[in-house]
Amino acid sequence: MPVFITLEGTEGVGKSTALGFMQQYLQGHHVPFISTREPGGTPLAEQIRHLLLNKSQEPVAVNAELLLLFAARAQHIEQVIKPALAAKKWVLCDRFTDATYAYQGGGRGVDNQKIALLEQLVQADLRPQLTLWLDAPVEVGLARAAKRQQLDRFEQEKASFFDKVRAIYRQRAQAEPQRFRRIDATASIEDVQAQIQQALAHWVAVHTL
Amino acid sequence: MPVFITLEGTEGVGKSTALGFMQQYLQGHHVPFISTREPGGTPLAEQIRHLLLNKSQEPVAVNAELLLLFAARAQHIEQVIKPALAAKKWVLCDRFTDATYAYQGGGRGVDNQKIALLEQLVQADLRPQLTLWLDAPVEVGLARAAKRQQLDRFEQEKASFFDKVRAIYRQRAQAEPQRFRRIDATASIEDVQAQIQQALAHWVAVHTL
Ligand SMILES: Nc1ncnc2c1ncn2[C@@H]1O[C@H](COP(=O)(O)OP(=O)(O)OP(=O)(O)O)[C@@H](O)[C@H]1O
Ligand SMILES: Nc1ncnc2c1ncn2[C@@H]1O[C@H](COP(=O)(O)OP(=O)(O)OP(=O)(O)O)[C@@H](O)[C@H]1O
Ligand SMILES: [Mg+2]
Ligand SMILES: [Mg+2]
Repeated sequence: MPVFITLEGTEGVGKSTALGFMQQYLQGHHVPFISTREPGGTPLAEQIRHLLLNKSQEPVAVNAELLLLFAARAQHIEQVIKPALAAKKWVLCDRFTDATYAYQGGGRGVDNQKIALLEQLVQADLRPQLTLWLDAPVEVGLARAAKRQQLDRFEQEKASFFDKVRAIYRQRAQAEPQRFRRIDATASIEDVQAQIQQALAHWVAVHTL
Repeated sequence: MPVFITLEGTEGVGKSTALGFMQQYLQGHHVPFISTREPGGTPLAEQIRHLLLNKSQEPVAVNAELLLLFAARAQHIEQVIKPALAAKKWVLCDRFTDATYAYQGGGRGVDNQKIALLEQLVQADLRPQLTLWLDAPVEVGLARAAKRQQLDRFEQEKASFFDKVRAIYRQRAQAEPQRFRRIDATASIEDVQAQIQQALAHWVAVHTL
């Protein structure tokens, strides 16, 4: 049985780096998988990502942002995630719906029930089985990401925004301990890699019998 | 009190032509108004329109199309429609949510309740007071529109698709006779203009006291 795994955490904590470790580890264990990301993952969904991340000529309405995210997700699920799982491939996804609860719910103040309703509409019973939450104080990730060129619409938010985002991740991880695995992202790259591999080992053992 | 008026109907029946008559009529009666259209009406919403209408590299998931439409609508409402009404301007809008019920509901088979749920999420209690439904057999409009260069993602659908669209418009017009006004769009341009002016006369009399 293929496993649907998501990576979550605030800006620059090391999600994409961790995705690299996961790819290596699964390849080493001959597990078939695809890697993808949100918002995005298909040509149309990447165009929606572009609308979401680029600074716009006008303020983006909170509901417009929320619906664009779920539009991209709907396309991504139909075109990429479901076909991969149907073909018995694991799916590694850099951010998914927990990010919507954290950023739009926590950061922008969107009502949880509104997000849950869209989650149900778009995903039906599709949920990740494992979510690796890379957790570090917001400043740690922002400092790591600071080397980048340009800040996007989210990256330019204040630290207080990301504190709310992190708080929601914590809350969700506590509410669903079977699904979430917290990774201490303040650790060295080698140590994060070891934590990631430990989190995967059980799933690889069970699902590659 | 400003009035929110929408224009509906299948391809090429004469909505944009009718919008021109409405503008003339309201100008003649010194009624302040704005004209706009969906999907679109703001720079971001027009970019979403572009994603919706252009032939894509990939099949567009039904949920993605539906959520893109409501994302554009959310942006349009916050940036254009609500501010205009707040400034006591009438709003003339070329297509609105009835088109979603007709095209996505009727044409694509999306469940009505799903559309109603998104309508509620995005519009709360915002509804048009008057909807001019330009009705003609599908072939009449398609023949009128045929002079155009390129067909978009919707225009290239089969006649049976538009028959379903028209049937939903009819059904909605029957269910809400106080809001809908059917315009016989098979008539000559002059006659359509007369029907439009008749439909507006009452509202202008009441709302310009
Ligand atoms: N554990 C770590 N210790 C120190 N630096 C790290 C660690 N993990 C990642 N980095 C570095 O931090 C930077 C950001 O990492 P990465 O791009 O993986 O983060 P991210 O969470 O994917 O960021 P974003 O949210 O912008 O996608 C990179 O330069 C990466 O090499
Ligand atoms: N009553 C009419 N009789 C004959 N031709 C008409 C009539 N109304 C409009 N037309 C012509 O039909 C064509 C389509 O009209 P128009 O662009 O107003 O339709 P529309 O409903 O806005 O189309 P679309 O759905 O593509 O936006 C135009 O060339 C227009 O001049
Ligand atoms: Mg990344
Ligand atoms: Mg038109």
